[in-house]
Amino acid sequence: MALRIDSRAPGFEEALARLLAMKREVSQDVDEAVRAIIADVAARGDAAVIDYTRRFDGLALTSGTLRIAPSEIEEALARCDAKTLAALETAKARIEAFHRRQRPEDLAFTDDLGVTLGWRWTAVEAVGLYVPGGTASYPSSVLMNAVPAKVAGVPRIVMAVPSPRGELNPLVLAAAHLAGVDEVYRIGGAQAVAALALGTATIAPVAKIVGPGNAYVAAAKRRVFGTVGIDMIAGPSEVLVLADGSANPAWIAADLLAQAEHDTAAQSVLITDDAALADAVERAVEAQLKTLPRADIAGASWRDFGAVIVVGHLAEALPIVDRFAPEHLEIMAEDADSLAAGVRNAGAIFLGGHTPEAIGDYVGGSNHVLPTARSARFSSGLGVLDFMKRTSILRCGPEGLRALAPAAIALGEAEGLDAHARSVAIRLNR
Amino acid sequence: MALRIDSRAPGFEEALARLLAMKREVSQDVDEAVRAIIADVAARGDAAVIDYTRRFDGLALTSGTLRIAPSEIEEALARCDAKTLAALETAKARIEAFHRRQRPEDLAFTDDLGVTLGWRWTAVEAVGLYVPGGTASYPSSVLMNAVPAKVAGVPRIVMAVPSPRGELNPLVLAAAHLAGVDEVYRIGGAQAVAALALGTATIAPVAKIVGPGNAYVAAAKRRVFGTVGIDMIAGPSEVLVLADGSANPAWIAADLLAQAEHDTAAQSVLITDDAALADAVERAVEAQLKTLPRADIAGASWRDFGAVIVVGHLAEALPIVDRFAPEHLEIMAEDADSLAAGVRNAGAIFLGGHTPEAIGDYVGGSNHVLPTARSARFSSGLGVLDFMKRTSILRCGPEGLRALAPAAIALGEAEGLDAHARSVAIRLNR
Repeated sequence: MALRIDSRAPGFEEALARLLAMKREVSQDVDEAVRAIIADVAARGDAAVIDYTRRFDGLALTSGTLRIAPSEIEEALARCDAKTLAALETAKARIEAFHRRQRPEDLAFTDDLGVTLGWRWTAVEAVGLYVPGGTASYPSSVLMNAVPAKVAGVPRIVMAVPSPRGELNPLVLAAAHLAGVDEVYRIGGAQAVAALALGTATIAPVAKIVGPGNAYVAAAKRRVFGTVGIDMIAGPSEVLVLADGSANPAWIAADLLAQAEHDTAAQSVLITDDAALADAVERAVEAQLKTLPRADIAGASWRDFGAVIVVGHLAEALPIVDRFAPEHLEIMAEDADSLAAGVRNAGAIFLGGHTPEAIGDYVGGSNHVLPTARSARFSSGLGVLDFMKRTSILRCGPEGLRALAPAAIALGEAEGLDAHARSVAIRLNR
Repeated sequence: MALRIDSRAPGFEEALARLLAMKREVSQDVDEAVRAIIADVAARGDAAVIDYTRRFDGLALTSGTLRIAPSEIEEALARCDAKTLAALETAKARIEAFHRRQRPEDLAFTDDLGVTLGWRWTAVEAVGLYVPGGTASYPSSVLMNAVPAKVAGVPRIVMAVPSPRGELNPLVLAAAHLAGVDEVYRIGGAQAVAALALGTATIAPVAKIVGPGNAYVAAAKRRVFGTVGIDMIAGPSEVLVLADGSANPAWIAADLLAQAEHDTAAQSVLITDDAALADAVERAVEAQLKTLPRADIAGASWRDFGAVIVVGHLAEALPIVDRFAPEHLEIMAEDADSLAAGVRNAGAIFLGGHTPEAIGDYVGGSNHVLPTARSARFSSGLGVLDFMKRTSILRCGPEGLRALAPAAIALGEAEGLDAHARSVAIRLNR
């Protein structure tokens, strides 16, 4: 049974604060191991990557076989079943169409002093996409990371995916192929992150690394940050469902369990103004758990981190939602739109009973890489802007410079930066 | 004398690679001290902040005097000279006008399946702005950080600025007042970053912290990242000037020195296709250094990190510029616009002889917080988007869900996430 609390009961604020402060991740101290691996890849390049791959993945490679050949990708494609491939194509087309609308516009304008100002957006020159091996090797995540980079115009997209004992998920390779990934390497862990960031004889360095990974991958990304850009470090996934008595309890239960099946550290929360709905959802969760293949994982997540919060009125729930800043927010209520308009902090909002989060995870078109662990208070889901950067552009003519010079000189002098002031003044002496 | 290299001479690539790999910052190992300070502020709140302020700033405070009272800010304003205040107002108005154009638009569209998709941008709920004390306490930086946050619609902007032995730069308080900062605290260092991120009895926590600082501040920002958002960790500043024989060597020298006076670790680089211009610039730098108040700093920067690169043709310079990915790029050449169009990596570009970087530092209107240390390869200058986040929104009706269900179910099953597939399928059984 998940935690159940009621906003009208004594001790509610304390119970809510405890729920919000819950640590769902055990932080593994792998930083020293990761530091050594990165230093070794910096020093020995391919040879170090090959050594670690032998040790951690049980796979013997050479510089010539680090990269997965195009022919292997074709073979993998041939092994995928047609229905799944078609689903991947649907997903890819919808993700691409959505993200095309995120492409930013350049700007140039001339102000009343004749000064031209603006900016230009350019794509990051090369991006590395990390894909975990094993059970967390999701083809949908390949699309969600690679398609926005492609839409941004990144000219070189490189993927690293470990293949423990040589095993690779053919759907991951199919997704990479569909998304237009340019190079795929069969390496993983901190050694792959280091190779992407620093480059080796075989792998040219990239400028930014994105994608989820285990504790080693996360620690390596933190360490190479600065040398390259990185995306957010993803934590365990979470969903918050906001529902009134009009909602279907079995559907809510299914969505709570879809979140919970990801990971024992995932979190599913229901907030409702209807205690009877809360009861019905709790019963439906227990019933559905009985036939779920990943019931162990989902059950542990629901027991340890799940919560049902009953409030007097749904409007009261909005400040609670903003404090959770959930990665995923589902709203199943009569006035879903106006409730949504009152939310400040959420990675993605799914409106109405016919929008299960799983649609957004796969084929809605919006990105499923979203801010976790309350970081929606200050960050956004992955998008095209994460693969572009903005260069500001300024041009003064002699008149514009003359008009702005007094203020610039005054500020330079006030800050004790005389060479700044002089670099402006010298242009007036003609 | 700065380094001089020629692209047509043997060993050029090696010399350029060495220049690019130069480490300009000595990394201070303050992480353990910072960890302890943050833990102490987490445990003891105000009392810890007050203790560290007494120890590091020689200033005795109470919970009641941590915050700078509005009356003190009014007094500081009265002490500023009118010319400098007017210059700050000019700067503020231009920064605001420029950044208003960066406000992003929300989107909502309905696709051919009747699915509604889009996103909504919202401001970060509270932002902390760190301002260094002492000589690096720049009022222009207060404007550059606070104005975009205000334009973004951040409802609460909090500033922390240390006042060693009680001293405060009145222009910094004036800039905060002008920019609409809501609360100002006279605290600094890791203790200020911790107080902003974690909150104390007196200081409510923020969701994002921006602004430059010393090694302790930088280490503290890295440590609280995740709990709050942070901006880039700024390194020493740099300028790259790209010039042909038409450029004025004295103006170029003035700009190189304006950069160099910031810090002995700053870097000023000239790339030109005209060896005679290179000679003239070198002579002008030496001549101008003789009368510069900060000649010691500027001279050391130019000697240790300055460089003059002569190339056969300016078009050859573009790949070199992209490898530097300079924070500031000035182009003084006949075909400045077409050269600028060929640049991928730069924080800001200043076009033509009448656009010294100092104009952009103060009153151009674009932001002077720009990516350093080659990070313009993957990141942008500070802007309105840094104070907002995007929530994606999805709504399916029954028909849209029915159309998308097969692909979503296929992918859920292919990824071994049956509860995902079931959360879609359960909605079809009606």
